Amino acid sequence: MASAVLKVAAAGVSRCSRVALWRAHSTTVPLHQGVPASLWKLGRLNHIAIAVPDMEKATALYRDVLGATVSEKVPLPDHGVYTVFVELGNTKLELLHPLGEKSPISGFLLKNKSGGMHHICIEIYSEFTNTHHKVDDISAVIADLKTKNIRMLSAEPRIGAHGKPVMFLHPKDCDGVLVELEEA
Amino acid sequence: MASAVLKVAAAGVSRCSRVALWRAHSTTVPLHQGVPASLWKLGRLNHIAIAVPDMEKATALYRDVLGATVSEKVPLPDHGVYTVFVELGNTKLELLHPLGEKSPISGFLLKNKSGGMHHICIEIYSEFTNTHHKVDDISAVIADLKTKNIRMLSAEPRIGAHGKPVMFLHPKDCDGVLVELEEA
Repeated sequence: MASAVLKVAAAGVSRCSRVALWRAHSTTVPLHQGVPASLWKLGRLNHIAIAVPDMEKATALYRDVLGATVSEKVPLPDHGVYTVFVELGNTKLELLHPLGEKSPISGFLLKNKSGGMHHICIEIYSEFTNTHHKVDDISAVIADLKTKNIRMLSAEPRIGAHGKPVMFLHPKDCDGVLVELEEA
Repeated sequence: MASAVLKVAAAGVSRCSRVALWRAHSTTVPLHQGVPASLWKLGRLNHIAIAVPDMEKATALYRDVLGATVSEKVPLPDHGVYTVFVELGNTKLELLHPLGEKSPISGFLLKNKSGGMHHICIEIYSEFTNTHHKVDDISAVIADLKTKNIRMLSAEPRIGAHGKPVMFLHPKDCDGVLVELEEA
């Protein structure tokens, strides 16, 4: 994906748009040296993920007791979870319950039998962010973070629950919080 | 505060506004019987609170590594914490570090030495929420939740870090999550 960005960048310099400027700038900074932090930044909080031991009970809490709008329960077998989204106006809660024997949240629920906050997902943007123009390549951000000694939970980004590339940062490098970065 | 709402409600019936309707409706439902859930609902996520063992390091992570805008460190002696807010566009992170010997987050940090997500704060609104009209009296919401067997961490609401009345719901009744409700 990085090489695609660089090719577009080479063609985009003369367009003189903010996008082109950002991409052109990228060509001047080899990825192995990292991308300057000023080229991207944290954007909106996409969701807070909460692992729950009983999805029906948790859904009823937010829908019936607290009066929020909730989605249907959706199985995501590729991710080993069922999800229900709780709308909060400016962001959402993502209720998670294990699906299958190798669910990535089973261990968390063994340690936290009542459930608990599992991770937060934050979108990433370029610095030209008045219009929240999206970052095209999460790989460039990952390369930058690696130069700053932030560890990742996997070698490569994967496609997240929303169909967009995501990467999880190591909780030990983020004050005990599992942080998911997602292309906006 | 509840009685003030009821007085306003009695005067407001003839105004025939949504606010007046809501308040008028309140007079028909004695608080000791609870307020119908339809009269209020969850609103925006105000913040996610993260307890951190090293405030300077945590602030540098979000400001210098992840490129977010962060506030100054503010001591809140009445709450036993230092706070730093991290802006995320649609909401914010509230970094917390203990202040004083009786800080309410010291125990959490003893159990979670790297830090971790401590609570989420959600604003509450009336159901006439297209314009996000605020709920005037968190006590009415608390009374409603008590009828639904949701336990609170204190007998009465207190004034939160933003100077507004807040109430914490018991994590055991909220899937292991400490939920703070705040008047919008």
